[in-house]
Amino acid sequence: MVLLRDIGERGVIKVIEDIISYPSDAILPFGDDVSGLKVNGMRLILKVDAFSEEFCRYYWMDLYDLGWKAVTMVVSDFVVKLAKPIIAVVSFGIPSNRRLSEVVNLFRGVADAAKYYGLHIIGGDTNESKYDLWISVSAVSLDKRKYTPSRFNAQEGDLVVTSGEYGITGLANYIHYNKISLETLPENLRRKILNKTKHPVARVDLLDKIMEIAEYITSSIDVSDGLAQTLYDLAEASNVTIELNSIPIDSTVKEYTTRNNIDVEQLALYGGEEFEILFTINSKFKSKLDKIISHYGLDLHVIGRVVNKGRVGVYYRGRLIPKRGWEYFR
Amino acid sequence: MVLLRDIGERGVIKVIEDIISYPSDAILPFGDDVSGLKVNGMRLILKVDAFSEEFCRYYWMDLYDLGWKAVTMVVSDFVVKLAKPIIAVVSFGIPSNRRLSEVVNLFRGVADAAKYYGLHIIGGDTNESKYDLWISVSAVSLDKRKYTPSRFNAQEGDLVVTSGEYGITGLANYIHYNKISLETLPENLRRKILNKTKHPVARVDLLDKIMEIAEYITSSIDVSDGLAQTLYDLAEASNVTIELNSIPIDSTVKEYTTRNNIDVEQLALYGGEEFEILFTINSKFKSKLDKIISHYGLDLHVIGRVVNKGRVGVYYRGRLIPKRGWEYFR
Repeated sequence: MVLLRDIGERGVIKVIEDIISYPSDAILPFGDDVSGLKVNGMRLILKVDAFSEEFCRYYWMDLYDLGWKAVTMVVSDFVVKLAKPIIAVVSFGIPSNRRLSEVVNLFRGVADAAKYYGLHIIGGDTNESKYDLWISVSAVSLDKRKYTPSRFNAQEGDLVVTSGEYGITGLANYIHYNKISLETLPENLRRKILNKTKHPVARVDLLDKIMEIAEYITSSIDVSDGLAQTLYDLAEASNVTIELNSIPIDSTVKEYTTRNNIDVEQLALYGGEEFEILFTINSKFKSKLDKIISHYGLDLHVIGRVVNKGRVGVYYRGRLIPKRGWEYFR
Repeated sequence: MVLLRDIGERGVIKVIEDIISYPSDAILPFGDDVSGLKVNGMRLILKVDAFSEEFCRYYWMDLYDLGWKAVTMVVSDFVVKLAKPIIAVVSFGIPSNRRLSEVVNLFRGVADAAKYYGLHIIGGDTNESKYDLWISVSAVSLDKRKYTPSRFNAQEGDLVVTSGEYGITGLANYIHYNKISLETLPENLRRKILNKTKHPVARVDLLDKIMEIAEYITSSIDVSDGLAQTLYDLAEASNVTIELNSIPIDSTVKEYTTRNNIDVEQLALYGGEEFEILFTINSKFKSKLDKIISHYGLDLHVIGRVVNKGRVGVYYRGRLIPKRGWEYFR
């Protein structure tokens, strides 16, 4: 008798792949960040993200934050596929003995995030749950883009590029699981952690700018299960090795971890819910990338290179890094 | 301190309406069976339905049946709006100590139902839940239809039309809650109850045929919270009184209830999950309705009439019937 915890989330997903008949004319293979079809010459994308409260809540988060995060999670997956969702629906389950004010907070978070992203919440489904509180957000985009970067197409020689800096959500995990009081942190670090975990922001701000180099992007993926796991997901999907040569780390996190003797690279590699964009680009077009970075002042960083088509691995400065990240049921 | 059980599901929905900013250019008002927008001259509809296992499972159902039902629920809402979903995504939460075979069953149900409806499952999100098992299905349609019947537009003098016959799911409730063994039922009744509850079918079969009279349909609604509640939902949305003069009742249910002294009209009015279509049509076009009924042999029945624009009520043969049906949190 096989239990879910025996095979983990990725094992479950593999089993599901064999059961559903994934459409052959989908714009992306099964298992990418989003999925969709071409319909009447338009690119129609539908994506769902969901969670149960028990598994996705730092001790300093309230239901407003969960609502905000649920929307951000979905939007982030569109952004890495160079799309912007236009409408969304929300379903949730909540025990009948929870307070109405909690639902109000949850929905204020959903509504405020949607507004931030210019996304309309057009419907939903209200359900009772026996114990857990759960929320599921589905969103749709419809546009005329011809090309959608997949996670299956990183090529040998490509540069690996990521947005943002790492370490904040890794430190948030560290603080949460070690039950450290947020009050003991320096003010600016505390504020960064609260911002990044309570009101994470999908990188819609990059969308228009990245469009200028879209045709050179060979693959892309959302960083939401930690940088290491994301790099492995990309490497496995594309059947390549990735050599990381630098990890952009938030300076405030660096200071704090140095002072407290915490391995900052571990935090940066094994965080999660960064909602940053990671993509590969043909190295011939590095000057085009540099141009938009400097022109718009983008926080995009070349962090490595794709090598060895045909062998999967992720190396950081010559050492193979362990594949590890967020996975349910384990 | 207000708890969810104090205001019920419909109360919660009203509160949410005030929080989200529903788009003014939506094809239907907030609170209809589905919602969507016109985009590039196309009608884009997105709809979600979900449930927690605890609340939606007769004792004779397995997870295959739950998966099947989850898809049917969503498709049914499209059908009453004269639409057919093309792609769907599924999110679910399941405790890690549940068997993999249960997830396999759940997804076989989802996949088989989707295949039945010609709907592609193009993605999903796998989550861990602490206690409950929950599933959420979101689907999208994209077509060129200009007009979408709402539940807000029933007009005085319209005929009220429903598909199918009632009583089976009401009897299923009766049997479930009174812990009656299915084995004690006559074979054909048992089979009808198993079919209608384990593998309910959204009325996609009616879609093409109803299109022929679509322009005469003034309003429509999905019958999924019981016939009485659905009629009240329609009456309240359209601000009208509905006079029912007959209820089509399944003959096998009628026989059984007569023999066992059960009030069959109660079962027919207060069932749930019938997934039948109910609509109103301008009485001038009754002959067009009759024509498609006889031409295609449709199981559509004129069951009543809309009266008294401006006063809400539902009467059956002159008596006001109680407003009562499935509502969460109560």
